[in-house]
Amino acid sequence: MAAANTESTITLPWASDFHCHLRQGDMMNTITPMVEQGGVRTVLAMPNLTPPLTTTEMAIDYGKSLQKLAPNVHFILTLYLNPKLTPEEIRKAAKAGITAVKVYPSGVTTNSDWGVLDFKIYYPTFQAMQENNMVLCLHGECPSDASKDICILNAEERFLATLRELHQEFPKLRIVLEHATTKAAVECVKSLGDTVACTITAHHLFITIDDWAGHPHHFCKPVAKFPHDRDALREVVKSGHPRFFLGSDSAPHPRSAKQGEKPAAGVFTTPILIPLMATLFETLGCMDKLEGFISTNGRNFYGLGQPPAGSITLTRSPTYVPEAYAISGSEQASLNDNMSVVPFMAGTEIAWTITKTV
Amino acid sequence: MAAANTESTITLPWASDFHCHLRQGDMMNTITPMVEQGGVRTVLAMPNLTPPLTTTEMAIDYGKSLQKLAPNVHFILTLYLNPKLTPEEIRKAAKAGITAVKVYPSGVTTNSDWGVLDFKIYYPTFQAMQENNMVLCLHGECPSDASKDICILNAEERFLATLRELHQEFPKLRIVLEHATTKAAVECVKSLGDTVACTITAHHLFITIDDWAGHPHHFCKPVAKFPHDRDALREVVKSGHPRFFLGSDSAPHPRSAKQGEKPAAGVFTTPILIPLMATLFETLGCMDKLEGFISTNGRNFYGLGQPPAGSITLTRSPTYVPEAYAISGSEQASLNDNMSVVPFMAGTEIAWTITKTV
Repeated sequence: MAAANTESTITLPWASDFHCHLRQGDMMNTITPMVEQGGVRTVLAMPNLTPPLTTTEMAIDYGKSLQKLAPNVHFILTLYLNPKLTPEEIRKAAKAGITAVKVYPSGVTTNSDWGVLDFKIYYPTFQAMQENNMVLCLHGECPSDASKDICILNAEERFLATLRELHQEFPKLRIVLEHATTKAAVECVKSLGDTVACTITAHHLFITIDDWAGHPHHFCKPVAKFPHDRDALREVVKSGHPRFFLGSDSAPHPRSAKQGEKPAAGVFTTPILIPLMATLFETLGCMDKLEGFISTNGRNFYGLGQPPAGSITLTRSPTYVPEAYAISGSEQASLNDNMSVVPFMAGTEIAWTITKTV
Repeated sequence: MAAANTESTITLPWASDFHCHLRQGDMMNTITPMVEQGGVRTVLAMPNLTPPLTTTEMAIDYGKSLQKLAPNVHFILTLYLNPKLTPEEIRKAAKAGITAVKVYPSGVTTNSDWGVLDFKIYYPTFQAMQENNMVLCLHGECPSDASKDICILNAEERFLATLRELHQEFPKLRIVLEHATTKAAVECVKSLGDTVACTITAHHLFITIDDWAGHPHHFCKPVAKFPHDRDALREVVKSGHPRFFLGSDSAPHPRSAKQGEKPAAGVFTTPILIPLMATLFETLGCMDKLEGFISTNGRNFYGLGQPPAGSITLTRSPTYVPEAYAISGSEQASLNDNMSVVPFMAGTEIAWTITKTV
């Protein structure tokens, strides 16, 4: 339980982020140490690297690289679903400590064939995952197809039938619908069994479509949608539902990749993550649900047990969010150039700050 | 009637564009001569300048500036709705040859108060417009208001009640719902009387939300929406409905304003407008409806009579759309810098080209 000394200070366990892009190279070197800065010591690292993490060895090696950069952090490793991920490979991965397998639309042979039929190709893999107690993390969107009126606005809702089907087929397989953005997704996950959970990002609790239209640093996939969708995300968080928890989907890109002719998708929240959540939860009047959302719920679902030793103390005192962060190896560079990363809430103040860590 | 010599050549009257942003200064000097290049010799010039065209004198002066830059073009002049546009001012404007008054959400005192009540403030103005045979051009969107679940996705649909009310109140006032983007808007306009028409842009006949998410040069207001919305726009165009016609809403911005932290809204189609429309209409299999859409329907609604003398001949031969156009006065500048304008379809080929003008 959170120990609130006064109304303006709260002490919590180190948080867990069940969806984070930590990248490679200079970007990885920059971002990974920021995990702790944001109040997090357990982080599920996404496998969509170049090349993607498709084998146990690759994931283990990646985990070692991350661990060197942030020795106090527990990295939960994942594999990128692909045709070589046979049941045998799944058993090997599980033994090696890989926790989850991530499904991206692009992880399927061709985008246009994505759908229920394609999932069936992977049923033996899912069966092996179920038997080996692994978690299936779903990027729950159908690829856009104008002939079926599927676009980025309804791609998530259209995917929910597949989620239901997977849950029915593999009732003991733990499935996480990642970065939910719609009321439909929230209602669907609530209606399913205890083996289906849902992550919500920090930024989707703040923004709607109006915030990313004409603002590339707020553009991400899945895109933020209607106000009533954001309301549904906020309501389920306020309710303290145990199968909904934080997965930031923090996804840094160099400024140049966000402010060009075709901005990359992704919002970067890692270094301010828990102060940002405290700020929001206070606004929503549900500070009592903060610990569940940023720690307990996800840890219980993933079967991680108690949070890591130590704690973070948050104080109701402004954090100034920088206009940008320099990418490591480029300290001399201007923050306005391509070697910087612009965070969510750049250049503004958020109400809470981490004042003590143990 | 269009004279089609062979399947690959078509001769049409000079087209009419009933919604175009011709800007000021260097941008105006650059864009205005491109109207003819795009196959258009009648163009309704938008009044949202800095400062906006709020008086008859300002509009007349602006028209003179445009006329010098494009002596062959007929410029239809408009005023920006504002509290000083009294019935007396309307009579004066009508006498001076001003054709239309444009309503923007920002033209109302405060955005947050926008809505039916605010329109009522302008009823005496609308009454005078009706009596003086002027046209009311509506930017038909409600301002976003998360507490009412209004966002840029449903802002147009939410506005339609106001359109219906205005038409009921002023049944003889000609009203144009500008740049329709939704099936709901198409159905609404079809259901109303002969004094209500609708413009459709070139780009909204091509793109959906997927095309502007992560592509600032496709970002405009109103935003392009679902595939089924685009289908509805295409269907009404294919049907040759006489109250639907071209208003390009071509809205150039310097590259720097489109590729920054907060891209400006607007798609630029002026120099390729009619070849672009021919390309689309051929794809839709409705070349027989092209002349109606780009000329006859709008001219009839606006009471302009026969199109200007002369003709344009289009040939089924590719037009290469430049990556960018240099802004006048900056010919030495690189097309990649801030002194250029990126058009719709930049760097691609469209199937038709204007090969002869008379």
